[in-house]
Amino acid sequence: MKIVKAQDFDLRREVEYGSPEQNEAVRKIVADIKKEGDAALLRYTEKFDGMKLEAASLRVTQEELHAAYEQVEPSFVEAISAAADNIRAFHMKQKRNSWMDLQPDGSLLGQVIRPLHRVGVYVPGGKAAYPSSVLMNVIPAQVAGVPEIVMVTPPATGGKAGIDPYILVAAAEAGVNEIYRVGGAQAIAALAYGTESIAPVDKICGPGNIYVALAKREVFGAVDIDSIAGPSEIAVLADDSADPVYVAADLLSQAEHDEMASAILVTPSEQFAKACQAEVQRQLAELPRRDIAGASIEQYGAVILVGTIEEGIEVINRLAPEHFELIVDNPMGYLASIRNAGAIFLGPYSSEPVGDYFAGPNHIIPTNGTARFSSPVEVDDFIKKSSLIYYSKEALLSNGDTIMELARREGLEGHARAIEVRLLKEGKAGANDDNK
Amino acid sequence: MKIVKAQDFDLRREVEYGSPEQNEAVRKIVADIKKEGDAALLRYTEKFDGMKLEAASLRVTQEELHAAYEQVEPSFVEAISAAADNIRAFHMKQKRNSWMDLQPDGSLLGQVIRPLHRVGVYVPGGKAAYPSSVLMNVIPAQVAGVPEIVMVTPPATGGKAGIDPYILVAAAEAGVNEIYRVGGAQAIAALAYGTESIAPVDKICGPGNIYVALAKREVFGAVDIDSIAGPSEIAVLADDSADPVYVAADLLSQAEHDEMASAILVTPSEQFAKACQAEVQRQLAELPRRDIAGASIEQYGAVILVGTIEEGIEVINRLAPEHFELIVDNPMGYLASIRNAGAIFLGPYSSEPVGDYFAGPNHIIPTNGTARFSSPVEVDDFIKKSSLIYYSKEALLSNGDTIMELARREGLEGHARAIEVRLLKEGKAGANDDNK
Repeated sequence: MKIVKAQDFDLRREVEYGSPEQNEAVRKIVADIKKEGDAALLRYTEKFDGMKLEAASLRVTQEELHAAYEQVEPSFVEAISAAADNIRAFHMKQKRNSWMDLQPDGSLLGQVIRPLHRVGVYVPGGKAAYPSSVLMNVIPAQVAGVPEIVMVTPPATGGKAGIDPYILVAAAEAGVNEIYRVGGAQAIAALAYGTESIAPVDKICGPGNIYVALAKREVFGAVDIDSIAGPSEIAVLADDSADPVYVAADLLSQAEHDEMASAILVTPSEQFAKACQAEVQRQLAELPRRDIAGASIEQYGAVILVGTIEEGIEVINRLAPEHFELIVDNPMGYLASIRNAGAIFLGPYSSEPVGDYFAGPNHIIPTNGTARFSSPVEVDDFIKKSSLIYYSKEALLSNGDTIMELARREGLEGHARAIEVRLLKEGKAGANDDNK
Repeated sequence: MKIVKAQDFDLRREVEYGSPEQNEAVRKIVADIKKEGDAALLRYTEKFDGMKLEAASLRVTQEELHAAYEQVEPSFVEAISAAADNIRAFHMKQKRNSWMDLQPDGSLLGQVIRPLHRVGVYVPGGKAAYPSSVLMNVIPAQVAGVPEIVMVTPPATGGKAGIDPYILVAAAEAGVNEIYRVGGAQAIAALAYGTESIAPVDKICGPGNIYVALAKREVFGAVDIDSIAGPSEIAVLADDSADPVYVAADLLSQAEHDEMASAILVTPSEQFAKACQAEVQRQLAELPRRDIAGASIEQYGAVILVGTIEEGIEVINRLAPEHFELIVDNPMGYLASIRNAGAIFLGPYSSEPVGDYFAGPNHIIPTNGTARFSSPVEVDDFIKKSSLIYYSKEALLSNGDTIMELARREGLEGHARAIEVRLLKEGKAGANDDNK
């Protein structure tokens, strides 16, 4: 883990958009599903997942869902259920009501806030299938009030039911009961355009491989999509008051995700930097995923030395990391100066896995510097708003002339006349009537 | 204006993504600006706008901004200022505070809500330059608290200052004072990546031609962008209680925007349908923009006959129109059943231009069926949130075992150990210590 200066260090990496061949393959899959529906969906599922299914067996049955509970440890059910409770409680605080503003002239203006009607959640298969991510994608939609939440996940090439029981239990605990065993670009296309067996959705979210990501980009517009996550990142700003053992463990917890993951320590103390550097090496040697974590630390890990904690905060603001731990005395005192960070963990006991699994805030957080302008997944991602305008006769009579002036200034006489016909009918000619 | 049945009528149209040549041209412009900065910006401005500028003259001066006030009518300044007040008042109601939830175990969880730091607003040149759109893009950003709002707009090929004084006055009234006379894909690239003269922004919004739209897509990821608007739409649901003169005028006010604009009447009354049809023809003949409005009505206009108002609402929900006027008795009584509409105008005096110019809600509204999952422009488009997690020692000690169980279930031992090193230090070994 190298020690570097703050200048010109930038977390941002070029985003992978797939090869022309991958793009072409995805476009063909999407077009085939749009045109042929279930027939194409079953064909691609056989081709890519090695599962020969019929339309009637695409959907996971209630029996299979119940059976999943028999295949997992009771302690897992308890843990995932406790996590689900915390995540639900936190997201409930994000709920907002429709509102109206009542004007003295009798008009009403407002925003009508409604959930999306139907949302699709993609859950990857194999090793990338994380029960915690099922909760983090589904619960905000559920709290938003989305009446139909549907999950798709590729069937494993091995077993018959073909879906990890831990994923099924997480889905059930989160409240999903419409689950289809399809994956890849074909599943995304089915969610976007619908097939005979799967009704189309309004929004698709959840992580996936490059084909899934490209398919989401391809169907965007027909449906909404979530943002496409880059490799995971942590930046820790700590001083001598912190424990190098804690900080090293937190850096490694991020590095073990992915060889592309990034773990950065920012500190004003050279002594602390060296202690953490040594501790990372010591803990790394004992880590089961030491090859992945080691490659991540080697390529993307760094210790950035700064003059002061304030200067460290400015480095953080430039990095705009996905996860940010601040382990210094009185961390709350710096909160107002943290401009860019997806999730902020304060103090020695707020280790990142607390947020990854349990505390309640979402663990799907903007990566690659996009915390400058975007937010962790939340209830707001599953609602839409409509403006509400009820104008009284009095309001129109008092403001009609001004509205007509602005419309005519833009050369939109038809807009002015829509007001004018009403003013004329009510016995009040427009002030700009001579422009007619 | 044809009268049709509800079945299979769909407002949605294929979205224009530009020709391969246009895409290629835009990619080259963006790459040149990214590499060469001001030099490329000045070169493209001379090439496309016919203006030979120097870096020092890119920015509109305070003197030019003040001079614009001399070139417009005082009544315009009054009207635009009154509109700005209303828009500001409405958007102020959308503001939200950061919040924290204090837990009994001493933990704090919350969301930190902050404005974006720097936002770029694109304003098209020529006839598409609408002062009202300047207000609608700028004011929500300003209300959100964005400290730096910068406007770009192409210099007209004619004059010296080269920018419509009405646009400059609208910008000043909205509170923008950093304005650059650049347009097209080159302006978008300059905002995204920065040049020597223009600092990069976090988000770009505002309408533009196909080159501007393609450039926004190209830079998305490096910065955030707003959604790309399709042709404007209105759907009116009215019965015999409505005045055909009002309804026809409202339909035409939308149709005059663009030959691609769409104006739809939904009604349970055949008699009312015919009266509106005749009235549209009558008013159309006298409209200055009758060629545009006529083409729009001919191609995309329609009257859809339904059995009941409730059935009409279902047609509206399927259309998910940008603008929706409901002109029936007690329109408020149907509000809860309107699921998909960008802006809802209730009653006979809430003519669409009231919202376009003056009432306060934003006039930038989702088109092409996307009101199913997106919202009018608002303060939320100019903020970002960070999750806040402060976990107490007590909270970590009580929940550490559960967090480790979930981490180990996902095969992420490094995550479990980040918790475990803390539990061990505090004299509490993890329950799953034997898994280590």
